[in-house]
Amino acid sequence: MIQYQAPLQQIQSLLFNIFEVDQYWRTVVAGNREALPDRELAQSILEEAAKIAQNLLLPLNQSGDQQGCRFDNGQVTTPDGFSEAFRTYAASGWCGLGGNPQYGGQNLPKSLTLMVDEMLYASNPSFALYSVLSSGASLLIDCHASDSLKQQYLPALYEGRWTGTMCLTEAHAGSDLGAITTRAEPAQSEEKQKGKPDHYKITGNKIFITGGEHDLSDNIIHLVLARLPGAPAGSKGISLFLVPKFILDEAGHPGQRNGVRCIGIETKMGIKASSTCQMQFESAVGYLIGTPGRGLNHMFTMMNEERLSIAMQGLGIAETGYQSSLAYAQERVQGQVAPGAANNTIIEHPDIKRMLMTQKALNGAGRALAAYIGHQVDISRFSTNETEQADAGKMVALLTPVAKSFLTDNGFQCAVLAQQIFGGHGYISETGVEQLVRDARIAQIYEGTNGIQALDLLSRKILGDKLVGYQKLYQEMDDWVQSKKSVPELSNIAKATEQTLTELDQTTRWIADKNSSNPALAGAVASEYLELFGLTVYSYLWLRVADSGLESENKKTLETANFYVQHLLPHSQAFERSIVATDCV
Amino acid sequence: MIQYQAPLQQIQSLLFNIFEVDQYWRTVVAGNREALPDRELAQSILEEAAKIAQNLLLPLNQSGDQQGCRFDNGQVTTPDGFSEAFRTYAASGWCGLGGNPQYGGQNLPKSLTLMVDEMLYASNPSFALYSVLSSGASLLIDCHASDSLKQQYLPALYEGRWTGTMCLTEAHAGSDLGAITTRAEPAQSEEKQKGKPDHYKITGNKIFITGGEHDLSDNIIHLVLARLPGAPAGSKGISLFLVPKFILDEAGHPGQRNGVRCIGIETKMGIKASSTCQMQFESAVGYLIGTPGRGLNHMFTMMNEERLSIAMQGLGIAETGYQSSLAYAQERVQGQVAPGAANNTIIEHPDIKRMLMTQKALNGAGRALAAYIGHQVDISRFSTNETEQADAGKMVALLTPVAKSFLTDNGFQCAVLAQQIFGGHGYISETGVEQLVRDARIAQIYEGTNGIQALDLLSRKILGDKLVGYQKLYQEMDDWVQSKKSVPELSNIAKATEQTLTELDQTTRWIADKNSSNPALAGAVASEYLELFGLTVYSYLWLRVADSGLESENKKTLETANFYVQHLLPHSQAFERSIVATDCV
Repeated sequence: MIQYQAPLQQIQSLLFNIFEVDQYWRTVVAGNREALPDRELAQSILEEAAKIAQNLLLPLNQSGDQQGCRFDNGQVTTPDGFSEAFRTYAASGWCGLGGNPQYGGQNLPKSLTLMVDEMLYASNPSFALYSVLSSGASLLIDCHASDSLKQQYLPALYEGRWTGTMCLTEAHAGSDLGAITTRAEPAQSEEKQKGKPDHYKITGNKIFITGGEHDLSDNIIHLVLARLPGAPAGSKGISLFLVPKFILDEAGHPGQRNGVRCIGIETKMGIKASSTCQMQFESAVGYLIGTPGRGLNHMFTMMNEERLSIAMQGLGIAETGYQSSLAYAQERVQGQVAPGAANNTIIEHPDIKRMLMTQKALNGAGRALAAYIGHQVDISRFSTNETEQADAGKMVALLTPVAKSFLTDNGFQCAVLAQQIFGGHGYISETGVEQLVRDARIAQIYEGTNGIQALDLLSRKILGDKLVGYQKLYQEMDDWVQSKKSVPELSNIAKATEQTLTELDQTTRWIADKNSSNPALAGAVASEYLELFGLTVYSYLWLRVADSGLESENKKTLETANFYVQHLLPHSQAFERSIVATDCV
Repeated sequence: MIQYQAPLQQIQSLLFNIFEVDQYWRTVVAGNREALPDRELAQSILEEAAKIAQNLLLPLNQSGDQQGCRFDNGQVTTPDGFSEAFRTYAASGWCGLGGNPQYGGQNLPKSLTLMVDEMLYASNPSFALYSVLSSGASLLIDCHASDSLKQQYLPALYEGRWTGTMCLTEAHAGSDLGAITTRAEPAQSEEKQKGKPDHYKITGNKIFITGGEHDLSDNIIHLVLARLPGAPAGSKGISLFLVPKFILDEAGHPGQRNGVRCIGIETKMGIKASSTCQMQFESAVGYLIGTPGRGLNHMFTMMNEERLSIAMQGLGIAETGYQSSLAYAQERVQGQVAPGAANNTIIEHPDIKRMLMTQKALNGAGRALAAYIGHQVDISRFSTNETEQADAGKMVALLTPVAKSFLTDNGFQCAVLAQQIFGGHGYISETGVEQLVRDARIAQIYEGTNGIQALDLLSRKILGDKLVGYQKLYQEMDDWVQSKKSVPELSNIAKATEQTLTELDQTTRWIADKNSSNPALAGAVASEYLELFGLTVYSYLWLRVADSGLESENKKTLETANFYVQHLLPHSQAFERSIVATDCV
């Protein structure tokens, strides 16, 4: 009963009509700075990704959930079909999509690869995780590791022959990574003299390591946070190490088994085909990445990449939920809308319509936000204008916690709505809808809980930035509102957006004002502030989508945008009232 | 990591201080009309129920989820310990708590038994279902069956030697029960002549039958909706039949196997220790209950009973989530609230506090609503004043869909919040918190989806009643507000309640006004209206709880009430705005 067709038309409309990313790519290429795709190539990549998602990954999603991963004496077996599918997927080049072309990556823009991520998560979130963690690990290596490590590891990661992990959490150190105790000892000098590269011996235990062990690839490259001898307490004492499952031989092939092993996997609520591993490091050979003591900062390169990706998990699962519940509502006959008339399909019942429209409105805005951020990532990466680059980087920093948190909260809520439309049939496993709810739930928790994201947004990205990036985004949103207020079809949406912008701005300034005398305030209101912020940004994005829809005479976007401002946006005011009523603790 | 202690103090405060139910019971007893408990007996029943929940049922909850029910050739085996626990539970008299004393029931007031229900669900929702369905089946038999059927079936049901089910849903008939096709044929005349009671032969298939087959009791009494020959189409052609698993012999003991069998059980998201059965009736002997063609009406006696009970499932699970996440937050050390200070337990982080307070505020009001409705049920049952009885009955009718829907929606939301506080540890099965989320989810779906409840509230209980019951409740709430506005500690809460009452009333009258010219409106706004209604009633109840707290100098209730009106109540306005913005379809 699960249905999924990649929403190619919406994606293309966002990328090419609304944000016109291809025009930006062209200026980059024209400057001879990078080899970026043109619109036609990008479209065919999206179409191919859709086929992979629909034909290769979706058929393994429910069976993967039912079988789960098996652990036996250090080995992890993924569900039937996963290993073959991953090899097919890798062979088609999907693991190196955003990678550095110097090492075999395809250098595709983020605005494009985020849309591919959505399709992966929509069709098979457990499978997607193996791939997106490898991409994030590759990015981190590319940004911070030595040329030698890049040469040794990136090509096989991009080819998907090897995969990557992030080893952060320890039993006592989850949200508080400063508390980790895994140790890194410099290798003994005689080993160094043998001409081997400088290395360290890593010892400690990590938990919740996604893809820490599995049977999809020939090597697994762990990126591990650990402390050097004498390192200061807290996050400044953390360094970053690359620890391969198999140490490379002189030819660069996986050779001797390293001192890292999986000692168990978690039984969990969902994403059951993704192995969540307890990893034990015992004098495992590790190579320093970047600067000692800067490990957590380096890791944030990967974490921010993964946070955007996890946002797509929320959106992707919600899209599958929407499409599946829409199809069910169009088929299922139950009751009469008007007494005495013929029986109706349930989509004709207004309350079912409301639940479908809610999903559509939240997913549409979520996808627009993803495309928007993806484009900002590309500008921050490809621009040669320092101001433009810095501004885009600030926008990415500002919006990453919003995307991670708001898309996953709404993704979960939408999966629950999809399940509700299926009624009792949505609660039994057979239909596959309850899996969506279970799989979506984790996205609100991992890669920094959504509470952590809210604090990051308010304390670091807004107050810590003295409202500079915020003000720039606010101005952009307000400019759009002012320019569309007089368009008859858009005036309701523009006016509602204007009102929520005022609320957001008053609230932001109220918090900034109180914050100096009351440092606990930000923590108390951060989650509600993120909701207010997210609702406002979604309203702005619906204005743009609806505006673009007018040109293409697609009245559906206008209808959805109006539904959004009438039924969902009003809660922004409640969050505003709640924030300013907060007792200053 | 799951912790649960029955909230006896809160329950007793609600029953005896706020709603003073024991004083009402005394007037009933004084009138010599019924044997009702006094306060001391009621307290000891609550304490005993707490022990059963904590010591007998809670220890089987997680293992029950892990093992689930097993199906083998028509037999269903419940998880280890369930059968013994049920026999212990039944032997202590818990199955006949609210039953008719003429047949061995204990005639306890609903205000008391609903609180016991909460404890059952809080500790083991799967187990609870076997018991509460039997209670509902007994009530239906007591209200609508012949004396002969009552004599034959009620004593064993009250003793828990037998259990009951409700057999409504068919594959194509869920929310729309009018579409059922199960047939009931009058028995052949020669059988009648043998002196056997009048009976029918029931043939058809039912799905989603909770407790349809299991190993807890010696007989299972199915209450089955079916159609007599020539019955009109739709709900008016439905009659109700009692179909025992084992036909009673002449001594009244379970004898010959009847033509009803379980042909499979569902694999589902949660409540895995509760068997959800596909039942096949093949010329099964059934006895008519009540009037032919009135089957659905009779069934509503049981359905309304179960709806109130399912409300307690939402509340009970949420209470366990609250207590468990509170205990975890008090133990788990993570990060510093103030930079550079010592590490803190996570309860000191304001965002964790917010999530705990939200649970506390929603659960406290939910319990108050349950106690309030329970007391109204008792008045409608025990009163000899016709007006008082009718008024109370109207209040129960009005508030039942609110309780079912609002307590289960909030129960699910609170279980999700509890899981969020556990972070990654909440997503793995070991801690038991993710089970709460899965178990709570079904309560929003079964016994009439929450969308159906919302429609029942607005269309039938408010508009269909021409606002009479609504107006009475409104007046009561407003009277309280006016009488407390000048109490300094309560004035904020009273004023906020006054404002939301005005919003509710304007919205109700707006809908009533538009409804006549636009019959589709009620369906379109019903769910949002229920949210507005529920938030308002919760505000009124917090006013009363806080008021009572003042007298006992318990400042905690005042704090929680203020949190409620500051942080949760503001959404009522958003629902109001959303409703009045609804396009008239």
